Amino acid sequence: MFDLKAYLKSRQRETNAALERLWDGTEPFPTPLIQAMRYSLEAGGKRLRPILCIAASEAVGGSGTDVMPAACALELIHTYSLIHDDLPAMDDDDLRRGKPTCHKAFDEATAILAGDGLLTAAFEVLASAGQTQGGDPSKWLEVLYLIARAAGCAGMVQGQMMDLSVEGKAITLEELETLQQLKTGTLIEVSVKTGALLGGGTPQEVTALAAYGQHIGLAFQLADDILNVEGKPEIIGKPVGSDQIHQKITGPSLIGLEQAKARAIALVDSALEELTVFDMRGEPLAALARYIIERTK
Amino acid sequence: MFDLKAYLKSRQRETNAALERLWDGTEPFPTPLIQAMRYSLEAGGKRLRPILCIAASEAVGGSGTDVMPAACALELIHTYSLIHDDLPAMDDDDLRRGKPTCHKAFDEATAILAGDGLLTAAFEVLASAGQTQGGDPSKWLEVLYLIARAAGCAGMVQGQMMDLSVEGKAITLEELETLQQLKTGTLIEVSVKTGALLGGGTPQEVTALAAYGQHIGLAFQLADDILNVEGKPEIIGKPVGSDQIHQKITGPSLIGLEQAKARAIALVDSALEELTVFDMRGEPLAALARYIIERTK
Repeated sequence: MFDLKAYLKSRQRETNAALERLWDGTEPFPTPLIQAMRYSLEAGGKRLRPILCIAASEAVGGSGTDVMPAACALELIHTYSLIHDDLPAMDDDDLRRGKPTCHKAFDEATAILAGDGLLTAAFEVLASAGQTQGGDPSKWLEVLYLIARAAGCAGMVQGQMMDLSVEGKAITLEELETLQQLKTGTLIEVSVKTGALLGGGTPQEVTALAAYGQHIGLAFQLADDILNVEGKPEIIGKPVGSDQIHQKITGPSLIGLEQAKARAIALVDSALEELTVFDMRGEPLAALARYIIERTK
Repeated sequence: MFDLKAYLKSRQRETNAALERLWDGTEPFPTPLIQAMRYSLEAGGKRLRPILCIAASEAVGGSGTDVMPAACALELIHTYSLIHDDLPAMDDDDLRRGKPTCHKAFDEATAILAGDGLLTAAFEVLASAGQTQGGDPSKWLEVLYLIARAAGCAGMVQGQMMDLSVEGKAITLEELETLQQLKTGTLIEVSVKTGALLGGGTPQEVTALAAYGQHIGLAFQLADDILNVEGKPEIIGKPVGSDQIHQKITGPSLIGLEQAKARAIALVDSALEELTVFDMRGEPLAALARYIIERTK
């Protein structure tokens, strides 16, 4: 029986080690900027995107080492997006994973710049890997392009913009899923896809894993919204019911809690179907897909 | 006699056309986000960084077309940095080039996201060029790496952080130049360097042009600070003397106006020396170096 807990722990440890190496010793300015960047980066994230990237590489016969720069870049981008989303002008959150948000622990200007620094560092890490990692440099250019597309104004940044603009407005489930696909789905999808690409997957394998990524991206957001209704605040690190208080439109608020759960399960089932061709190698991805809707934080 | 005015005009026009093409028709979401990005991008910048990139390519026998994606990326990054620097939590400026700043014309959240979108788009443009432009993809990876380094937490973002932290403090001329080198110098230097690299320059040519870029980067910031003392507000698009009112430490405030002018001239002379090997092909860069300290805005 596949031990997901041990798998997550070991891949988290590898990712954290790689992330720490990014600024170890090499930094000529151990400034508040780097401190703020590291504060948010090391604030206890699940490393879901890096782990998906690594697991996708393993599913196609690659290794974690092959994709580690991409795994790090994805976490840098995810962390920057959290810092900017938490800002007073955006979601105005004081807590993130139970700790003060970056602009609370430092100040607003530092938080904006820390986000900018993390986003830029993501592309530096990818470009550096493409130059030094050996192999085909155009593969790294492709991955860099896909990640930039997923993170930018046709992906995550656009999703956050839509999220702010629909506040308090009536939207349909379809509109909500478009928004969530952009805001969190595209980066999760591209995490899986780049893992498959850099791990040496065939075009068919890459397509299957990208589809898997798309399904779990939506399931992940639904699960988050469900946790906001019935999770334990001491485990999820933020107040339960905050979406309802802020009148935030979510899957559960639109179609009800039970239907939202059924939809999340259906999405995970679709994701699992994409994995059938990978046999045993797909086990970590299958377990990750189930974990996404069974997790408690 | 080389006609700089005509040269600037034609290269500006080419750059603007390339920048406009980035979102023409292809955008599935003609959203306020894209509007805000374009608002700042089209607010009448001098396009100094793209023109330096093109001129450096021409100096080594390349063309503007060879480097246009890099020229665009540099302007996208420059524009993002202006949007974020103008935010209330940073320099809190209401006007930029005589027009409302992005967060005034839109709102703060939109301005933060527009900056994020422009920064991400810069790397998307570079990665896309590396895949489609032909030639050696590893050259584009190198350029992408250099630009990310220059823009990030060891370059421009760090410079802005230092700029905020020294406000009202006593610093030396050396510290000021380190700060300015990071804040504006590195991106100007890398504009010239990437132009030389993508234009096909020899290692010696690239080194000479990078040194040229470093000198004019510092001269440019000094000239800006001098203009803030004695420029015409209706031409520079912001109040004259604002640095003094905000007790901002600048070259002129540290060493006096006359010495600051002498230092700017010396820097331009050093830049011109690096161009001697380029003969006629270096004329645009020579004229640009002189223009940097002779301009009125």
